[in-house]
Amino acid sequence: MVYKHKIVRDSIHGNIKIEGLILNLLDTPELQRLYNIKQLGLAHLVFPGAHHTRLEHSLGTYNIAFKAANLLKLDKNDTELVTCAALLHDIGHGPFSHTLESILKNTLDVDHVDLTGKLILGDYDIFCSEEKEFITSPDVNEILSRNNINQREVADIIKGKSHKKQYLSQLLNSAIDVDQLDYLIRDAYYTGVAYGIIDIERYLQTLTLNSGKLVVMRKGVGVVESILMARALMYSSVYFHKTVRIAELMLSKAIEMINCSNPFDFFKMTDTELVSHMKRTGSFQYKIFTCLKYRKLFKQAYSVSFPDLNEQNIDIVKNLEKVELRREKEKEMEEILNIPAGHIIIDIPYRELHYTEPRIDQTDIMIINENKIKKLDEFTPVAGAIKSRAITDWCVMIVTDEKHRDIVSKNAEKILFS
Amino acid sequence: MVYKHKIVRDSIHGNIKIEGLILNLLDTPELQRLYNIKQLGLAHLVFPGAHHTRLEHSLGTYNIAFKAANLLKLDKNDTELVTCAALLHDIGHGPFSHTLESILKNTLDVDHVDLTGKLILGDYDIFCSEEKEFITSPDVNEILSRNNINQREVADIIKGKSHKKQYLSQLLNSAIDVDQLDYLIRDAYYTGVAYGIIDIERYLQTLTLNSGKLVVMRKGVGVVESILMARALMYSSVYFHKTVRIAELMLSKAIEMINCSNPFDFFKMTDTELVSHMKRTGSFQYKIFTCLKYRKLFKQAYSVSFPDLNEQNIDIVKNLEKVELRREKEKEMEEILNIPAGHIIIDIPYRELHYTEPRIDQTDIMIINENKIKKLDEFTPVAGAIKSRAITDWCVMIVTDEKHRDIVSKNAEKILFS
Amino acid sequence: MVYKHKIVRDSIHGNIKIEGLILNLLDTPELQRLYNIKQLGLAHLVFPGAHHTRLEHSLGTYNIAFKAANLLKLDKNDTELVTCAALLHDIGHGPFSHTLESILKNTLDVDHVDLTGKLILGDYDIFCSEEKEFITSPDVNEILSRNNINQREVADIIKGKSHKKQYLSQLLNSAIDVDQLDYLIRDAYYTGVAYGIIDIERYLQTLTLNSGKLVVMRKGVGVVESILMARALMYSSVYFHKTVRIAELMLSKAIEMINCSNPFDFFKMTDTELVSHMKRTGSFQYKIFTCLKYRKLFKQAYSVSFPDLNEQNIDIVKNLEKVELRREKEKEMEEILNIPAGHIIIDIPYRELHYTEPRIDQTDIMIINENKIKKLDEFTPVAGAIKSRAITDWCVMIVTDEKHRDIVSKNAEKILFS
Amino acid sequence: MVYKHKIVRDSIHGNIKIEGLILNLLDTPELQRLYNIKQLGLAHLVFPGAHHTRLEHSLGTYNIAFKAANLLKLDKNDTELVTCAALLHDIGHGPFSHTLESILKNTLDVDHVDLTGKLILGDYDIFCSEEKEFITSPDVNEILSRNNINQREVADIIKGKSHKKQYLSQLLNSAIDVDQLDYLIRDAYYTGVAYGIIDIERYLQTLTLNSGKLVVMRKGVGVVESILMARALMYSSVYFHKTVRIAELMLSKAIEMINCSNPFDFFKMTDTELVSHMKRTGSFQYKIFTCLKYRKLFKQAYSVSFPDLNEQNIDIVKNLEKVELRREKEKEMEEILNIPAGHIIIDIPYRELHYTEPRIDQTDIMIINENKIKKLDEFTPVAGAIKSRAITDWCVMIVTDEKHRDIVSKNAEKILFS
Repeated sequence: MVYKHKIVRDSIHGNIKIEGLILNLLDTPELQRLYNIKQLGLAHLVFPGAHHTRLEHSLGTYNIAFKAANLLKLDKNDTELVTCAALLHDIGHGPFSHTLESILKNTLDVDHVDLTGKLILGDYDIFCSEEKEFITSPDVNEILSRNNINQREVADIIKGKSHKKQYLSQLLNSAIDVDQLDYLIRDAYYTGVAYGIIDIERYLQTLTLNSGKLVVMRKGVGVVESILMARALMYSSVYFHKTVRIAELMLSKAIEMINCSNPFDFFKMTDTELVSHMKRTGSFQYKIFTCLKYRKLFKQAYSVSFPDLNEQNIDIVKNLEKVELRREKEKEMEEILNIPAGHIIIDIPYRELHYTEPRIDQTDIMIINENKIKKLDEFTPVAGAIKSRAITDWCVMIVTDEKHRDIVSKNAEKILFS
Repeated sequence: MVYKHKIVRDSIHGNIKIEGLILNLLDTPELQRLYNIKQLGLAHLVFPGAHHTRLEHSLGTYNIAFKAANLLKLDKNDTELVTCAALLHDIGHGPFSHTLESILKNTLDVDHVDLTGKLILGDYDIFCSEEKEFITSPDVNEILSRNNINQREVADIIKGKSHKKQYLSQLLNSAIDVDQLDYLIRDAYYTGVAYGIIDIERYLQTLTLNSGKLVVMRKGVGVVESILMARALMYSSVYFHKTVRIAELMLSKAIEMINCSNPFDFFKMTDTELVSHMKRTGSFQYKIFTCLKYRKLFKQAYSVSFPDLNEQNIDIVKNLEKVELRREKEKEMEEILNIPAGHIIIDIPYRELHYTEPRIDQTDIMIINENKIKKLDEFTPVAGAIKSRAITDWCVMIVTDEKHRDIVSKNAEKILFS
Repeated sequence: MVYKHKIVRDSIHGNIKIEGLILNLLDTPELQRLYNIKQLGLAHLVFPGAHHTRLEHSLGTYNIAFKAANLLKLDKNDTELVTCAALLHDIGHGPFSHTLESILKNTLDVDHVDLTGKLILGDYDIFCSEEKEFITSPDVNEILSRNNINQREVADIIKGKSHKKQYLSQLLNSAIDVDQLDYLIRDAYYTGVAYGIIDIERYLQTLTLNSGKLVVMRKGVGVVESILMARALMYSSVYFHKTVRIAELMLSKAIEMINCSNPFDFFKMTDTELVSHMKRTGSFQYKIFTCLKYRKLFKQAYSVSFPDLNEQNIDIVKNLEKVELRREKEKEMEEILNIPAGHIIIDIPYRELHYTEPRIDQTDIMIINENKIKKLDEFTPVAGAIKSRAITDWCVMIVTDEKHRDIVSKNAEKILFS
Repeated sequence: MVYKHKIVRDSIHGNIKIEGLILNLLDTPELQRLYNIKQLGLAHLVFPGAHHTRLEHSLGTYNIAFKAANLLKLDKNDTELVTCAALLHDIGHGPFSHTLESILKNTLDVDHVDLTGKLILGDYDIFCSEEKEFITSPDVNEILSRNNINQREVADIIKGKSHKKQYLSQLLNSAIDVDQLDYLIRDAYYTGVAYGIIDIERYLQTLTLNSGKLVVMRKGVGVVESILMARALMYSSVYFHKTVRIAELMLSKAIEMINCSNPFDFFKMTDTELVSHMKRTGSFQYKIFTCLKYRKLFKQAYSVSFPDLNEQNIDIVKNLEKVELRREKEKEMEEILNIPAGHIIIDIPYRELHYTEPRIDQTDIMIINENKIKKLDEFTPVAGAIKSRAITDWCVMIVTDEKHRDIVSKNAEKILFS
């Protein structure tokens, strides 16, 4: 007798076999929705192949978690917990993935991980308007219940906060976790960038458990260095690529300009739904989304990096990390230069970067060598250097449309630091 | 002095350098719109990586055409004609690429190649509603004019009908052309299927011109066989994969059920725009697109292959290739079985296949050996065998939703051949 | 406690884990010797990357056999038998793999499979002169004994003649077996040729057991076609590449010209040992191996294909398949044209091809569809066409050194068919 | 008319077109000999795929140099000089590439770069015994003469010492040169290690000339970091892999134990010739090469790293970098422990590393940003960190055969630091 299973062809991991609980979870509306959320937001405007979605990445993360669980010889319960968590870790993502994260953070002080938790616990659902009528399949919360999986535990593992099972949290959410392994290699594949290629199998083979924590064996130091380097380079060259960033700033601005919107509303949407919704919201939004459709992007009018700023101006820049002050400054500049509202955007990337990927600063990996546990820094100076390396070559950038570029270029510095 | 150029990172061909005329064409709204048209329609519902777009494929086709032009030592004018044609060959595609092609064919007797021609000649534009107001960049027709490129000639090359420059037509539209080279290898990459991997460089090196025609050298027979085989296998396993086909039938049915629609209207749309438009059109459309969003697909209720049919029934099947007769039969079946309208779809794939890819039957490649030109069939029996090979393992398939599957399964054969 | 295992990094299959019995077999002198036998003989003279060895291929074949055993859910005993057989299947190979096979066949009527059998049964050993003194590790026969593995059964599986376990024989030695899966993809990787890329996992997933035989499911027809095509193209473009063939003919001729040699003596040697031995054997051998070292190869002076021969001449060619008659003809030609002995080589590749790879003619794969078993030919015409396709574009080729090329070219046809 | 050219299939760079001067150089005995020199010495004993040769690497280096010359728009003369230099840069390599370099250095104070220079200037030839009689094709020196290429200039470019054309020297021999680009990616491919994968095209596109020097544009900092990291990781995990190192120490010891040998004699040999020569030299050599053939390697009996040594012992280790003192210590240890001569080998890898790859310490890359030239270190802390990173995890290692491992382990430390 053949029991039910499915073979999914993944471009990265080859044939992935899905069955039982995991197959049931894959069929839920929460996961199927991820087919419609691009993994890299608007990066395809610069890297034309980058149309891959959160669904693929979720499957890939599941796949690596499953391999890791086998190599670490986890028991059935732990394996279920960590593979469910891996598959579900991104279900709370809004349209265009990380692009709108900062709006959510600024207005409601939640992020996609919190929403993921709410979905798993059944406090929230992802359906828009009357869709629910046509989709009768059970949701994630129900599937977990039926299979006696502790939803709270799954949510905690995803948040990196499981105390009972710290090693499971570390596997999914720590300085180097299976989530990153999948996205680095997958994003490299679809963007065609060479940096993200890492040796997943080799890394997994150097993991081991020690007193309930996940540690890396001495022989894994090289592969750890290569992963940290790959991550740093992917951030510089893809995730915070200047043109990608500009497109994402345009998208965020279009949403920010709708005064009364409730972020939860658009967070349920898919990329497609957000685009068509926004085009009907107002003329500024119609313009921005038409420009994005035909790739007519705003341009950089001004940029400066930290080494070129004096102390006083560094303070001004740091002050502008506060979103309200930044918006005020944008308005001030628009008024002085007589530019229509929404057409000047000031970017201070550093804080944003840490909403998007809090793990970028984490290099606190523990290495086990002849039964002693030490920090990674004791084995190599490279990790520390990578941590202190700048991701973008600007600390402030001002962008505007082609028409106003010259006038902004000429006046930006004066107004910014006045 | 640095002159303006752009390096595009392509997952298949690496860094593609774009400049001058080609760079100007790339910036037109016609080409930028292709960022929003998935190359493989709904195939991502089966192959999760298949989200790549017509833009990438257009760039890739340009890239191969440029290499071929160099290897064949074409002059500047020929090179411009064939590389423009290669870049532009798909601008007429509607949303979801080939999926809706048969509706267009059935109602207006045109296909995407005709629309491409109209766009190049300036008889048509691709803007929806007020978009034009925000997009001031010149269109394809104008760029060609400014550069003194004969638009008619470019359109003819794309149609495979250039008489003056038959070899250019052959390069872009014949039994094995640069279009196919790109899509086979690109679709293989994004679906993760091993079949489409072909040696493009090797093939190009065996091409030569002979009396104004493009022919393949004797030593190229092997690579030609491998390309024909790759194409056949990609059709069987990806383009006409049963589940992909079912999703596409659902999409077509949703459009067919809007009585008064003008196909031209939806042909200008992007994937995104079609989806959001359709969801607002009617409740059947809302249902279908919600089902596609969450991947709740119709199921196969009945299928049969030619070897299992008697002659009389073969005639009945062939008769059902006519779209009106097929619709009548669907209605009849819905009425007899008391199933709501639009929920039974009869698929006769053979004719469809030939709208989608008329080149599938073409193996009339000419081989040059010691200055004599012969047909490919004189060098290998494989080409002929591939041509007579069945692409799908059904000649009729009936699909319906989960709820009505059993009743349709039990009664389909009787009603179909009554 | 950590038990002993080894991770081998394979370019094709990634990390291969080796332990227990298999690790013990890997350490035997029979297997370690394969590090020194190039997989593709002299093919590196044309494909500079083709230096890979029989050791890698043996490990790769083991790896695929292990995966297949798991997928087919074979029991422990069957798994041991077939994985041991897979790892050991090439230990009988002489230097330069298949190159010298025909000499062995012609003089002693044995082939490398027979020698493999002898080694497994303990009737033969692979040590040269006093080596045994320094190598104290147990040999294959002993390791199998210690582990209670039936040596006769292993040898029979390798020969494709196991009656009790026909499905194991089929897995390792039949129309499409794991041996071929590994060599096609590995040889493609190292030669840089695109043809050999096949989807191993997909193929294995379509295998099943039926009444003690190995059959392929209906859905596997496409992948089977792709493997047959890949094999045919690898034979045409790599294994029987004209220049590779010429180098191998030179090597064979050098050995043939030593009158009294016992083929068993050189069959124990590695590539390195054969080369240095031969250079000390005589001046003709010194010349040939110096020419091979610096890639100064003989040239084709004459060639003809079957379609260009009349019936009488076809008979003459077929007659020349007998090695003594061919040698006589070579001598005759040398004498008439006053060319030193050994400098004219007549190649009749067809028969040779079938010593090297008897499976090339086998397309008798059984397909299971809805519980009925039919031949592959009933599902696709492609298999039959591939079988009747010519591998080389010559049926006779005469090669000689640069100096005598012209005179041989002018006179070859007349002397050959006189 | 077709002019003479050759397409070489390279596993890394695809089809490489060779013609004219370069084709003539490729046919010389100096280059053809490189088919017989493994790129990575004995690394295949650990990485079974690493059988690739210096010929492939030479072709690949030529290929990258040619691309770089085009991108930098070098004139014809410069292009000829640098492409010839790239193709020829390794012709002076002895058997097993770098393995025996230190013996040459210790006895005659020359390295393979010096021998390459001698070959180009015609002061040396690579034929063994009577080979020259059979090889009539012109040598490198003659081909360069015929084509009016300044041999001295080519040799100087290879040595990194061209004063007139400093940028050409930098292209081939500097902190990041085309030689390294090829070997990193090639060695990664054949060992199956993921670290060496770098984006060659991207790096070349960021190179530019400034006042006669080669500099990297600001946007190239990321790709430079990735190359430095790749190199460091390849050294740790492949080139100085502990087991590879042990095999190479055995080989060196076998040669060192022949008292009267002239290093020049074996430097002309190929891998094959050295092996068969050595096996006939003496019983110790016979033993060592038999052990290498069957992979019966010496084992590590003792090792220590710098952080675990006190200052006095660090001085002792540094002292042992002198080869005569090291040999004395080995003898002392053999005598005390009653172990036969040649069976104890002390490895101090640090100095060796710098013979093999003097570029490992070089990170002095100049970056051009808005017309100002600064050091790489001003843009990233990563380069400096990589430079100070340890390649091996031992600063002294003592190896011996299995039989004496225990006694050496117990006594090594005491004798070493006495």
